[in-house]
Amino acid sequence: MTAAVKRDAYTPESLLSVAVGVFNERGYDGTSMEHLARAAGISKSSIYHHVSSKEELLRRAVSRALDGLFGVLDEEGARAGTATERLEYVVRGTVALLVAELPYVTLLLRVRGNTDAERWAMERRRDFDHRLADLVQAAVTEGGLRADLSPRLATRLLYGMINSIVEWYRPADDGDADARERERERAKDLADAVLHLAFDGLRPR
Amino acid sequence: MTAAVKRDAYTPESLLSVAVGVFNERGYDGTSMEHLARAAGISKSSIYHHVSSKEELLRRAVSRALDGLFGVLDEEGARAGTATERLEYVVRGTVALLVAELPYVTLLLRVRGNTDAERWAMERRRDFDHRLADLVQAAVTEGGLRADLSPRLATRLLYGMINSIVEWYRPADDGDADARERERERAKDLADAVLHLAFDGLRPR
Repeated sequence: MTAAVKRDAYTPESLLSVAVGVFNERGYDGTSMEHLARAAGISKSSIYHHVSSKEELLRRAVSRALDGLFGVLDEEGARAGTATERLEYVVRGTVALLVAELPYVTLLLRVRGNTDAERWAMERRRDFDHRLADLVQAAVTEGGLRADLSPRLATRLLYGMINSIVEWYRPADDGDADARERERERAKDLADAVLHLAFDGLRPR
Repeated sequence: MTAAVKRDAYTPESLLSVAVGVFNERGYDGTSMEHLARAAGISKSSIYHHVSSKEELLRRAVSRALDGLFGVLDEEGARAGTATERLEYVVRGTVALLVAELPYVTLLLRVRGNTDAERWAMERRRDFDHRLADLVQAAVTEGGLRADLSPRLATRLLYGMINSIVEWYRPADDGDADARERERERAKDLADAVLHLAFDGLRPR
């Protein structure tokens, strides 16, 4: 990414992309503006031309992940139908979002809460988790999911499984339209596998 | 932990416990011997009396997790019976081990591979993952698990779910024998929930 961007051609967007890569590699706490400047191949003062602080970069990066996640909850498929159907829709949507915004979601999941910006991110993430837990609870209540698993624990395990995808999923390099289409197919197959495993289980029915 | 250990009473074991806590909080890369000395409340030279380097502490810490994990694979229940029964045994055993050795397994899962010691840990972890994938493959082959999920992907999702437990599980403080028994019960219930969800799915059968 760095090499492909001309020195004077950074936009807030492309600088953010470089910063997220460094945050994910070094950890947010372990990253200085100096590290970011070096990775971007520009001076620190050029970075300050785009953003006021490292915190601002973190907020913008995790907002991109969180806006995407909350956006899934606002889509028609997440608001219509039974709670179980809505949950299935949301699981598919979050897997697709995780894959499409992989570095941003990875950063969100790794944030640990040592600074105000990190605590703010964790707080918004908790809001999202509560919305999910409410949906799982509603699906249990309507009889679409088993009642012998605590909805809170089921939500944690289900989303633990989904979130773990960031540990190993590596998208193919950007390519032509065909390559992007194959990548979308791969993400869809992954969402199918997650749904099958989580809803139907590994044992043959 | 630190406060309960007298300055001159450190053993390699108790120092390791302090070090693992600091590694998990600051990240291994972000931890210096100075940080470890401060957390332990002793001088750096006192630490060097116990261990030769930060790398040695990492190796000892992740070995404790890895020896436990490989130990599960060597137990009778993991070697006798059908592959599906053995997999169930191993899932139970790894959840129990994860909870019993929570800080050590957490460290193992967070290691990223920037140094030789970290790469060595990741290598051993990959060996363990391959053993699991072989077991899942054998369970699919014998018909105990569905064949329409790739064994490799099923292993990743299953262990993604299990490993995510380190993100939220917090054992009760050490207490008397009754408290320890309750903690074991809690870990057993958790392993049951993981098995139910993974093998039978969230949907009522």
